[in-house]
Amino acid sequence: MRAVEVVAFDGDDTLWHHEHLYQDTQAALRELLVRHVEGPVLDAHLLDVERRNLSLFGYGVKGFVLSMIETALELTNGEVTGGEIGQIIERGKSMLRHPVELIDGVADTVQQLVDDYRLVLVTKGDLFDQEGKIARSGLAELFEHVEILSEKDVAAYRRVFSALDVPISKVMMVGNSVRSDVLPALDAGAQAVHVPYRVTWDLEHAEPLDHHRVVRLERIAELPGYLDSLIP
Amino acid sequence: MRAVEVVAFDGDDTLWHHEHLYQDTQAALRELLVRHVEGPVLDAHLLDVERRNLSLFGYGVKGFVLSMIETALELTNGEVTGGEIGQIIERGKSMLRHPVELIDGVADTVQQLVDDYRLVLVTKGDLFDQEGKIARSGLAELFEHVEILSEKDVAAYRRVFSALDVPISKVMMVGNSVRSDVLPALDAGAQAVHVPYRVTWDLEHAEPLDHHRVVRLERIAELPGYLDSLIP
Repeated sequence: MRAVEVVAFDGDDTLWHHEHLYQDTQAALRELLVRHVEGPVLDAHLLDVERRNLSLFGYGVKGFVLSMIETALELTNGEVTGGEIGQIIERGKSMLRHPVELIDGVADTVQQLVDDYRLVLVTKGDLFDQEGKIARSGLAELFEHVEILSEKDVAAYRRVFSALDVPISKVMMVGNSVRSDVLPALDAGAQAVHVPYRVTWDLEHAEPLDHHRVVRLERIAELPGYLDSLIP
Repeated sequence: MRAVEVVAFDGDDTLWHHEHLYQDTQAALRELLVRHVEGPVLDAHLLDVERRNLSLFGYGVKGFVLSMIETALELTNGEVTGGEIGQIIERGKSMLRHPVELIDGVADTVQQLVDDYRLVLVTKGDLFDQEGKIARSGLAELFEHVEILSEKDVAAYRRVFSALDVPISKVMMVGNSVRSDVLPALDAGAQAVHVPYRVTWDLEHAEPLDHHRVVRLERIAELPGYLDSLIP
């Protein structure tokens, strides 16, 4: 009896680089509005606007662009020009068009596991954008199931994992976010592996954790070895 | 042996009013820009922008808002004011906050069918917004499965219907859009019922059709009677 039968991966910042696109775009917004507002003020205000809009927009690039435009309007008292707003929209489009860049070690790791484990992908965000990224990642065929969620909470994980026809305790969730990947998957009864990404969005921050069903790996390439170590 | 075991419903403009929200918002945009551009010119340009953006934004309110802003920037040579762009964003937020209004006869019809048929909901659009609408519709518990798609094509229907453990020929898809609900469901091997809505988005227009597996009902309330008529 194996302790793990299904390995479930998060997408953004677990399989492919993601958050840096947001951070680069935000840096460009700071530059664009430099004559109106100082960088730290903009960062703080944008975070407030994103938080305020989350219940209406959900996650994803389109909502981020709308929040950047709102932030620009509010911080410049509406004096931001049409041309500048056009630049913000173009930046957003560049994010949506950006090639999917796999994180180091991902392709080999997934390829190594596919013969011994059932692999699923459980990601969060904009349906249309996520589907495009999965298709462009070149990994789609390695996953027996792909689930795109609007929010990664315990109810969502329970629903997704229950449909796999395996005890949830034999599912291992692998992701970079303690808040979205690790904690709710543990609460749903799965195991979890935390593989931190080098940057974390402020709204994803969570306290470090100590739990008997979670381990932290520095690089995803360590995952096959860790899974091997669980086989009696 | 019943000819229909699963009834699959579209959401927008089949179960609840939807397109009128877009049309009302577009009318407000015409009003907002009346000093810059005539209504028909704006309508045509917005449709072009939406078509151009569809492959990046997909369907839904957030992409519509971004397309409205782009349209306003382009048609005013960037002279649209920050305040006016703020009003466009506010209009979009009102769309997202708008109560879900069921179409006449929907609640009774779905309630009548739930004991005799397996009911599923197959809708298209923004994941976050659609989930919110389904929850607010009050109908969620009547459906054994809800599928939110980024595009309703034959491959998507085949995947969704195949997972139902019933021959696809015993699935009946009910929707207002010939292009998105009727034709691809027929191509996937299902039956289809077309219940037209009073307005159709230009990008959803399709030729009227003549097909032995589709009927057209004027009102959704006629659906239970039609299903009864199929029982030998």
